[in-house]
Amino acid sequence: VLFLQMGWGDLGAFGEPSKETPNLDQMAAEGMLFLDFYTANPLCSPSRAALLTGRLPVRNGFYTTNAHARNAYTPQDIVGGIQDSELLLPELLKKAGYINKIIGKWHLGHRPQFHPLKHGFDEWFGSPNCHFGPYDNRELPNIPVYRDWEMIGRYYEDFKIDLKTGEANLTQLYLQEALDFISKQQDSQQPFFLYWAIDATHAPVYASKQFLGTSQRGLYGDAVREIDDSIGKILRHLQQLGISENTFVFFTSDNGAALISAPKQGGSNGPFLCGKQTTFEGGMREPAIAWWPGHIPAGGVSHQLGNVMDLFTTSLSLAGLQPPSDRQIDGIDLLPVMLQGKLIDRPIFYYRGNEMMAVRVGLYKAHYWTWSNSWEEYGKGTDFCPGQSVSGVTTHTQEEHTYLPLLFHLGRDPGEKFPLSFASEEYQHAMEWITGIVQQHKDTLVPGEPQLNVCDKAIMNWSPPGCEKLGKCLKAPESDPKKCSWPH
Amino acid sequence: VLFLQMGWGDLGAFGEPSKETPNLDQMAAEGMLFLDFYTANPLCSPSRAALLTGRLPVRNGFYTTNAHARNAYTPQDIVGGIQDSELLLPELLKKAGYINKIIGKWHLGHRPQFHPLKHGFDEWFGSPNCHFGPYDNRELPNIPVYRDWEMIGRYYEDFKIDLKTGEANLTQLYLQEALDFISKQQDSQQPFFLYWAIDATHAPVYASKQFLGTSQRGLYGDAVREIDDSIGKILRHLQQLGISENTFVFFTSDNGAALISAPKQGGSNGPFLCGKQTTFEGGMREPAIAWWPGHIPAGGVSHQLGNVMDLFTTSLSLAGLQPPSDRQIDGIDLLPVMLQGKLIDRPIFYYRGNEMMAVRVGLYKAHYWTWSNSWEEYGKGTDFCPGQSVSGVTTHTQEEHTYLPLLFHLGRDPGEKFPLSFASEEYQHAMEWITGIVQQHKDTLVPGEPQLNVCDKAIMNWSPPGCEKLGKCLKAPESDPKKCSWPH
Repeated sequence: VLFLQMGWGDLGAFGEPSKETPNLDQMAAEGMLFLDFYTANPLCSPSRAALLTGRLPVRNGFYTTNAHARNAYTPQDIVGGIQDSELLLPELLKKAGYINKIIGKWHLGHRPQFHPLKHGFDEWFGSPNCHFGPYDNRELPNIPVYRDWEMIGRYYEDFKIDLKTGEANLTQLYLQEALDFISKQQDSQQPFFLYWAIDATHAPVYASKQFLGTSQRGLYGDAVREIDDSIGKILRHLQQLGISENTFVFFTSDNGAALISAPKQGGSNGPFLCGKQTTFEGGMREPAIAWWPGHIPAGGVSHQLGNVMDLFTTSLSLAGLQPPSDRQIDGIDLLPVMLQGKLIDRPIFYYRGNEMMAVRVGLYKAHYWTWSNSWEEYGKGTDFCPGQSVSGVTTHTQEEHTYLPLLFHLGRDPGEKFPLSFASEEYQHAMEWITGIVQQHKDTLVPGEPQLNVCDKAIMNWSPPGCEKLGKCLKAPESDPKKCSWPH
Repeated sequence: VLFLQMGWGDLGAFGEPSKETPNLDQMAAEGMLFLDFYTANPLCSPSRAALLTGRLPVRNGFYTTNAHARNAYTPQDIVGGIQDSELLLPELLKKAGYINKIIGKWHLGHRPQFHPLKHGFDEWFGSPNCHFGPYDNRELPNIPVYRDWEMIGRYYEDFKIDLKTGEANLTQLYLQEALDFISKQQDSQQPFFLYWAIDATHAPVYASKQFLGTSQRGLYGDAVREIDDSIGKILRHLQQLGISENTFVFFTSDNGAALISAPKQGGSNGPFLCGKQTTFEGGMREPAIAWWPGHIPAGGVSHQLGNVMDLFTTSLSLAGLQPPSDRQIDGIDLLPVMLQGKLIDRPIFYYRGNEMMAVRVGLYKAHYWTWSNSWEEYGKGTDFCPGQSVSGVTTHTQEEHTYLPLLFHLGRDPGEKFPLSFASEEYQHAMEWITGIVQQHKDTLVPGEPQLNVCDKAIMNWSPPGCEKLGKCLKAPESDPKKCSWPH
């Protein structure tokens, strides 16, 4: 599984005008393109938790109740993280003999109990949080980079990111880790799960020297090109080892392109409305490609409504395992879609924190709440929908539509610009259908304990395991837990 | 040459989310995709005049001086049309022994002296104007459909278009004409030029019965699917006749998708700003595919800045002819681009009527004037940029920027949302380059006599040639020539 912050419109195969992703386009030509694929949340941490648990963030705890409908994630002062009670994909795969590795950003909590090796992974090379920084190591510590159980350095210190030039060789390190891991498992004939969670396209965006300045699209495009190149190398590696027909590869993203970082550090959501942080299509519809030569027909295209949570269930199915039956699993098994061309009826729920903002059923999408961001944040220059404004839709106050949802037909109007008339027969018919599905979802929903409510400077990455050996332990301030502030 | 009102984002190969154009996508896979291809004007008639003359509308007379920077076309009360002094592609090809046919909308004037058979075409099946209607034949006559020199009926009378259901079999008629014409020329080993100027995607949008309701995208999508299907049939016909390697086929469009007609009757301009009628990318950047098996490498992608006017020069080149040397020709020969992968340095000029609104040089686009439409028209509900609004860019007054043009980098910012800072070094450098090109263009420009200034109800399609035989001649009102009113 390949996973990173890219928008639906960032790939040549999805209509990016500079068409600079030959390897991903080739992957699509050899595999199956999913055009109606979603992430579980318009923000990174909850999406990643959803991918690994097969469950909506509101169930697995990756949300906040500090305020209504707020996006939350795992900055380094977050107290919560992934709960032991959650069953993660690698934990389950382990039972079928898989070796599991995560390369890149974990983002499910950085405290000891949340460590990926305590949740089913056998190996880790990467960081618990975003590569924000550089920090002063007094007010804020720099983010550590781990190899397995222990840190081996910190961003901006031992793992350089030059914010001026955008140069960093991290994607190359992540690529080499992936190739080595694959070779090693092949040598020992070991089934494996690799979660390649790179983050070069997340601001601050970076690329290796040989990719800097090579894209028409600026630094963001350089990062995309390096990722594209790396994915090509991974797929070719599988082919050269002769295991491509035994290896299922899926490429997708954890949220829509961050338009607040555009044009230099943000990508494209193609024809869709707004971006990351929002529950419009631009925030949650993702590029998605499945690749499994000899099994998934080459050049396939699917309109199956898919979700990153499906990768949980699908991966279990590939390993011959059943998903846990003691809890609600939201992911579905996509194998019948990919192997037999089936279409499975299922809704897509668009959550922002504790609120179901919208739902997609078939080609219809009903908004129960609309919000881009607050007037206050917008006034400070934070715009999740730059150049876009749909009256009554991209609202700067949280607008409730629960009694009369705003309804769009995403076939005729993928950009969510023309709500259907409330008085139309089409509206009545569609809402009858949708209302039943939403009612059932709400009636049976048991929200998890919210993990993203409490922040504390004392629990930041001051002294990660292994810091002593490196002389990189820092002094933590006194504990001062408080409600995290989530402005969006 | 295939030519019609579609947006850049309307094809699967260009990222349309429903991906319903398998034949055009296949054409692209077998040929070359042009990602930076433009029409010569954001409106139909001037673009068609430019295609056939290889010259900007401001040179060939397809513009108005009734007001500043107004789009004009050829409604049926237009007095002007294509001048005898202009040399059209079919006139020139005739000298090399080509048989030339136009199928569909001519749009270069409907009065006798403007008839396509007087300007180099040997055959015609189609209409001089858009298929607007139905009219009452008293205030306004219905638009005639011609076969060669004479009318054979009128839209809504003999050629049905059901505005309620959107059903019309015109695309099937146009397809059959094309297939028959190709077969006939092949039988007689005759080189030919076919200009297939269908218009099913122009509002009022229509499709044949077997395509109605088949698209996710509504009626517009049905029309696109029928066109896609027809193009597949034309290409397969060429292959079956064994002449595909001797036949150069080009697909493009005369203006961006008409967003005023969206969502039911208008298409998509993908990630680009605004649509038809504007000089933003959505108004003039077009889908474009070149196909010539055995010559143009399959799966090619070009970033050549191309223009419909290039089809004039390229077609002459294919026929072994030189473009006329006694006048300014704006089209360039694309053969080196398609056959040897060359990139030719050339600017793209974005005109609206008599004004150069913008210019593209490399990846930079400088706006010298910005305007979407007037507050008055906008207030009446006419919106060329629905859901889009870029402050200071999509203006509702004509804004002059000639002393300090608004500059965009289309690689980093294809959506024209983030003008470069005037103070930046990049701005200074780019504008130095651009200013020289614009200066040279303006210094050497000799505008043609404007043809789209005068309108007269007396010269509408009351009594086209052949009307007597059909009993379809109508009584014209008295001549009352006046300045045409062009609100946009």
